[in-house]
Amino acid sequence: MPDAAPTAAALIIGDEILSGRTKDKNIGFIADTLTDIGVDLMEVRIVADIEEAIVEAVQALSERYDFVLTSGGIGPTHDDITADAVARAFGLPIGIDQRAVDVLLPYWANRGIEPNEARLRMARIPQGATLIENRVSAAPGFRVKNVFVMAGVPAIMQAMMDEVVKELRAAQPVLSETIEAHRGEGDIAAPAAAVQAAHPEVRIGSYPYHDGTRFTTRLVLRSRDAAALAAATAELRSAIGMPATA
Amino acid sequence: MPDAAPTAAALIIGDEILSGRTKDKNIGFIADTLTDIGVDLMEVRIVADIEEAIVEAVQALSERYDFVLTSGGIGPTHDDITADAVARAFGLPIGIDQRAVDVLLPYWANRGIEPNEARLRMARIPQGATLIENRVSAAPGFRVKNVFVMAGVPAIMQAMMDEVVKELRAAQPVLSETIEAHRGEGDIAAPAAAVQAAHPEVRIGSYPYHDGTRFTTRLVLRSRDAAALAAATAELRSAIGMPATA
Repeated sequence: MPDAAPTAAALIIGDEILSGRTKDKNIGFIADTLTDIGVDLMEVRIVADIEEAIVEAVQALSERYDFVLTSGGIGPTHDDITADAVARAFGLPIGIDQRAVDVLLPYWANRGIEPNEARLRMARIPQGATLIENRVSAAPGFRVKNVFVMAGVPAIMQAMMDEVVKELRAAQPVLSETIEAHRGEGDIAAPAAAVQAAHPEVRIGSYPYHDGTRFTTRLVLRSRDAAALAAATAELRSAIGMPATA
Repeated sequence: MPDAAPTAAALIIGDEILSGRTKDKNIGFIADTLTDIGVDLMEVRIVADIEEAIVEAVQALSERYDFVLTSGGIGPTHDDITADAVARAFGLPIGIDQRAVDVLLPYWANRGIEPNEARLRMARIPQGATLIENRVSAAPGFRVKNVFVMAGVPAIMQAMMDEVVKELRAAQPVLSETIEAHRGEGDIAAPAAAVQAAHPEVRIGSYPYHDGTRFTTRLVLRSRDAAALAAATAELRSAIGMPATA
């Protein structure tokens, strides 16, 4: 059974993540959300606020994957260059988008916020883009081709993701089974490899961790085929001497 | 004053991060550590346990940056393919490395751990690599050319980083000043852009966040030139009506 799930990449944009000053909170959220709706997150990149770096990453990822989700760099300051970089990546003109202005001006007016030139940068949208609603602070994200451009502030990004998931083609969710092996990875590596070889439609991951006392291993089996998943799980439990209780 | 700091990229390898099941803890640690020693982290990639994806990322990043730090995929199981992928990326032979065996066998013997074939996979090291000591669980990381290959388990990765930083060329650390602007990004965008234009040797970042009550902005000025940093900070404080107290 071939894996027919749509693929995606995430592109996190911002010097503050690369310097360590801000700890990323968006990758995990994007990963969880895509897994929930059956989209395979295949790659994540974090790049600096450098136009060339953003352009190159957008081009590479949008060619390779079904969807690209970006986060960061769409605010009002000089280092917010994501919209211009995405426009350049696709050779599109960019300017103040009246639809965005029509959302922003009343929002600002209600809050006594001055609509200055810097703030109006947030209405710069590549031509032909569709807007992504921002119910937190109004300034919209946007979609160009297969690229969804979202804010970097987690609360805003998460609100935008609610809109993005509506557009992502839903796929059969990935099913998974987890086995806590209660032993070191080296003890379960050979049986895990054998079961993996026998069940190519199931992906078996082995994840060592320290449980506070010693190193132990969690085995995770993932598939879109429920029957194959059940069979592989039963075989692996048996092979490591942990058959499921009846 | 040109930025002469060495550059680096981080490559995080593992399906578990991309599925969201494991939340990454290594990117922030690597970012903080590199910033502390004056190395500029320019890019991060997260890729799956797929050999082609790892090979391609290692090649791209090692060509582009002074150093590449990888994390993940060097354990004993079938999905631990980083060592083989790095060898392939550089066209190097790979096999059981006697130096690694000499570290692992006594470590295992002392703990009653059986040195089976799966565990011995952890001694597979590309030819010509130097080893990176692992004082947590013995199985070494390694360096090939400008690529440092480390474990994914945070405690082990952090121990290996202590060894890696010794090898990274120390550079003048980046100095920084932070201004809490106590107002929205749109209000400080124009003065920040003007000061940025006047001080190309200083990098000014503007980071909006929600302080629990409202959106506010932190301005961070970074430079390796202390005098330029002081001048730009004073100008920016003055421009936004927040001169430093005497």
